[in-house]
Amino acid sequence: MGLKTTPRAVLIDLAGVLHTGDQALPGAVLALNCLRASGLRLRFLTNTTRTPSPQLFAKLQRMGFTLAAAEIQTAALAARTLVCRRGLRPLWLVHPDIAGEMGDSDPDPNVVVLGDMGTHYTYAILNQAFRLVMQGLPLMAMARNRYFMEADGLSLDMGAFVSGLEYSSGVQAEITGKPAPAFFAAALAELGVTAAEAVLIGDDLSDDIGGAQAVGIPGILVRTGKFRAGDDAQPDIQPAMVVDDFAAAVSALIG
Amino acid sequence: MGLKTTPRAVLIDLAGVLHTGDQALPGAVLALNCLRASGLRLRFLTNTTRTPSPQLFAKLQRMGFTLAAAEIQTAALAARTLVCRRGLRPLWLVHPDIAGEMGDSDPDPNVVVLGDMGTHYTYAILNQAFRLVMQGLPLMAMARNRYFMEADGLSLDMGAFVSGLEYSSGVQAEITGKPAPAFFAAALAELGVTAAEAVLIGDDLSDDIGGAQAVGIPGILVRTGKFRAGDDAQPDIQPAMVVDDFAAAVSALIG
Repeated sequence: MGLKTTPRAVLIDLAGVLHTGDQALPGAVLALNCLRASGLRLRFLTNTTRTPSPQLFAKLQRMGFTLAAAEIQTAALAARTLVCRRGLRPLWLVHPDIAGEMGDSDPDPNVVVLGDMGTHYTYAILNQAFRLVMQGLPLMAMARNRYFMEADGLSLDMGAFVSGLEYSSGVQAEITGKPAPAFFAAALAELGVTAAEAVLIGDDLSDDIGGAQAVGIPGILVRTGKFRAGDDAQPDIQPAMVVDDFAAAVSALIG
Repeated sequence: MGLKTTPRAVLIDLAGVLHTGDQALPGAVLALNCLRASGLRLRFLTNTTRTPSPQLFAKLQRMGFTLAAAEIQTAALAARTLVCRRGLRPLWLVHPDIAGEMGDSDPDPNVVVLGDMGTHYTYAILNQAFRLVMQGLPLMAMARNRYFMEADGLSLDMGAFVSGLEYSSGVQAEITGKPAPAFFAAALAELGVTAAEAVLIGDDLSDDIGGAQAVGIPGILVRTGKFRAGDDAQPDIQPAMVVDDFAAAVSALIG
């Protein structure tokens, strides 16, 4: 277990790595400052799609983190970019908070785009998505994370709703955030580094570590956020390194 | 394609075979009368868990079907029986209409039992189930059907929610209705016939035909209800017979 070379860039997951809810994790603010001072290029990758990017940025700033809005790459903006590039007519089934950032849904959609609606998921909305997919519309989903850490414990993430729709419709969703190879590739391209020159720090064994390592980016798993005992001993996904928290990951990288 | 011998008993799916919503399918009432007059033993097996058994029975009678309440075997009552036999303390996450039939949830549950809540599914309820399962409680589900036929088209069935919970929790649900072998076995036992002496008529390729044939009961697929073009040409599940509707199935059996 370990990194073969010193990386040139670091991809950092947000929720569960730097913070939980509105609380910075212990030592994370200082560690990010140290990492930034080391001169490594940074990119923050998040599958959280309940919060618009400007608010997410403001929240991280309020917690004390030093970062630029342009350094944050979200699964929601990746979906918007894909829809625009392909000239698609989207039906956005997203959290009301990010509806403005996504733009209007098309009255005659040719793609269904699902985000994490949290408590706003309803049977009617999911059935609407199901019926359109059964009529032949492709299904795009911002993420397929299983769960995430909230202040009061692990909570169901949008992966449950994506996989449910996939099961009933028999149609596979295209994921726009992690672990989609294109999402990692976009970050590497903007940072100007190869996969082998980067490293990812995340708390999600499957979508962070598994996703990154599938495209050749070594993954450092932290034991915070949604980490559960045994995540560091799965035979199918073996992180390049497992450390207690973000501060320990930074120490390992620049120490 | 065809049946090797004349059966002694017929297992009949309800929604999509005898009726859609509150409407009897054309010819179904007469066909059931003919089937009954032939002396074959009958059992009605349903995974519908939004309606209590007495109301389901009354609804079928209103549509003109001749049957006894005791001939109907529901996935919801199968769940109740399992919970009682095993002395479990259930949390019932079910449609409000069948809550009374299931009985009170235990304040300190040791099993989560999920039914089809239809429009009553909420994020909060699904997250409650998720958290209890992550704490180690087993998950029981009345069915895992993908979709069903409503008056205005195919609609999402509870399988989407079961498979979503399974995906996020990593825990497999125990199904109490079709296609659980025990559900078919219970019907055969009460009818006093072997699997080879029975036949099933259903519109769900996976949960009716696939489930029945997995325990040795030949399945007749009808092209009504949720049947979709291509269901009769799947390589993995090949019905013993495919006919246009229930009346045609009865003709084939007693003609």
